[in-house]
Amino acid sequence: MEKKIIYVVSDSVGETAELVTKAALSQFLDETDYDLYRIPYVESFEVLRGAVYHAKQLGALIGFTLVNNELRDFLVEEAASKQVECVDIMGPMLRAMERKFSLKSKQEPGNIHKLDEDYFRRVEAIEFAVRYDDGRDPRGVMQADIVLIGVSRTSKTPLSQYLAHKKLKVANVPIVPEVDPPESLFQIPTHKCIGLKISPEKLNGIRRERLKSLGLSDGASYANLDRIEAELNFFDNVIQRLGCPVIDVSNKAVEETANIILNMINQPYWNLENDNGEKIDES
Amino acid sequence: MEKKIIYVVSDSVGETAELVTKAALSQFLDETDYDLYRIPYVESFEVLRGAVYHAKQLGALIGFTLVNNELRDFLVEEAASKQVECVDIMGPMLRAMERKFSLKSKQEPGNIHKLDEDYFRRVEAIEFAVRYDDGRDPRGVMQADIVLIGVSRTSKTPLSQYLAHKKLKVANVPIVPEVDPPESLFQIPTHKCIGLKISPEKLNGIRRERLKSLGLSDGASYANLDRIEAELNFFDNVIQRLGCPVIDVSNKAVEETANIILNMINQPYWNLENDNGEKIDES
Repeated sequence: MEKKIIYVVSDSVGETAELVTKAALSQFLDETDYDLYRIPYVESFEVLRGAVYHAKQLGALIGFTLVNNELRDFLVEEAASKQVECVDIMGPMLRAMERKFSLKSKQEPGNIHKLDEDYFRRVEAIEFAVRYDDGRDPRGVMQADIVLIGVSRTSKTPLSQYLAHKKLKVANVPIVPEVDPPESLFQIPTHKCIGLKISPEKLNGIRRERLKSLGLSDGASYANLDRIEAELNFFDNVIQRLGCPVIDVSNKAVEETANIILNMINQPYWNLENDNGEKIDES
Repeated sequence: MEKKIIYVVSDSVGETAELVTKAALSQFLDETDYDLYRIPYVESFEVLRGAVYHAKQLGALIGFTLVNNELRDFLVEEAASKQVECVDIMGPMLRAMERKFSLKSKQEPGNIHKLDEDYFRRVEAIEFAVRYDDGRDPRGVMQADIVLIGVSRTSKTPLSQYLAHKKLKVANVPIVPEVDPPESLFQIPTHKCIGLKISPEKLNGIRRERLKSLGLSDGASYANLDRIEAELNFFDNVIQRLGCPVIDVSNKAVEETANIILNMINQPYWNLENDNGEKIDES
């Protein structure tokens, strides 16, 4: 199959547009079946005219986020006149908000990238997660909003980073039978600790892959099932002593586990999930 | 002003929907002026009926991403019959792709969170950036796709993490006059190194804030302008010896700097930016 070509056009960085476009693409194609090109910081009609021209030549689809109404109207008309398929990703939401809030859009590109307090809190959280990764510094446990604990290869690091992007200060502590868990874990409120559990088979598979990618044989005790059982028993024991909630990460992507944690600590109005993050089907 | 309430409904995690909704909200309101509630993993009509009911009671706006057509049609009809404002965030893009690609949507929720090779490369990159943060281990420089160098407080850490989410292996190395930069920096191809420069005034401001947040007085040499000038001179000197590209991060959000780097290493077809990441206005 010939590669599909998609243009993403934005008057800001274009990451929102890219994310929506990729999510939609995942319903049709594998990543290898398309090329996506981002055209960021668009400010002039000429650039838009050029984008439509090239899209026409290449048979590309255009997805865009333009908060400036003149730019948007121009692109929509230009694409229509050249018969180029063109999707306004944020427009319907902006129009709905204008109606609903009875407010005018500010039409300022890049408002989500403002260097405001919010931005600095996010940066601080990312730095925090790096500094207190893998139990590096026990002070992290006391200062954190959330402390993730689990045996090696339970996605503690990427999960900490994902939650940091949501402005949470996350420390993570590895659980190893040979090492006593830090005393500070028992001094913080139970609900700040979250255990990450995983099935022995899954963990074995992940660790074998890990060893392979490091160029090591899989005979090492790291990926040995007896060793894994011992580690997980020790982990269960620590969790029982802590009495903290546990999430099974065996078949979850980091985003899914993060979502469960966000729901645990920030209970929405109308809670559709129980404490284990399981869906409550109301039907 | 009364707080606006927004529901984000999804048959997956709902992060795409949340990002678009927040980007649109930033054109109208500050973060403190609204509450956003996410209703993830929706699988039944009953949950949708409940969402519309609650949205009606609270005067909320609904934004949604539902890749299942039956769920989508149900929500659109239910919202219309109750006169609740409801925006289909991904639908127009999905329909456009069906037309353009002559393919049917798979209608599988959560395809962007699949635990595939792509996912594991991303996780690996995030772990890499944490491991080789702040020059911790000189081996990182040799293995990295990109090495960021800069004085303290030039956003090396968050930038490394942001690029890791794009599956790039990023190491970062601090530049300090008292310490010789690692020899390995001079052994890797020039284009793998990227210097982060910043104006002395801006850096002074950031460091003062940093000291304040650590509860320290700002008399320390860290935020002293003479000291800063010396550090930046030393940095300029290292950059000249390396002959590597430099980006001025003085007034840029991490996302913006990352975008410049992505464009530098992955030149699109149709390049609208020069090597400094400056916009080329064709008008």
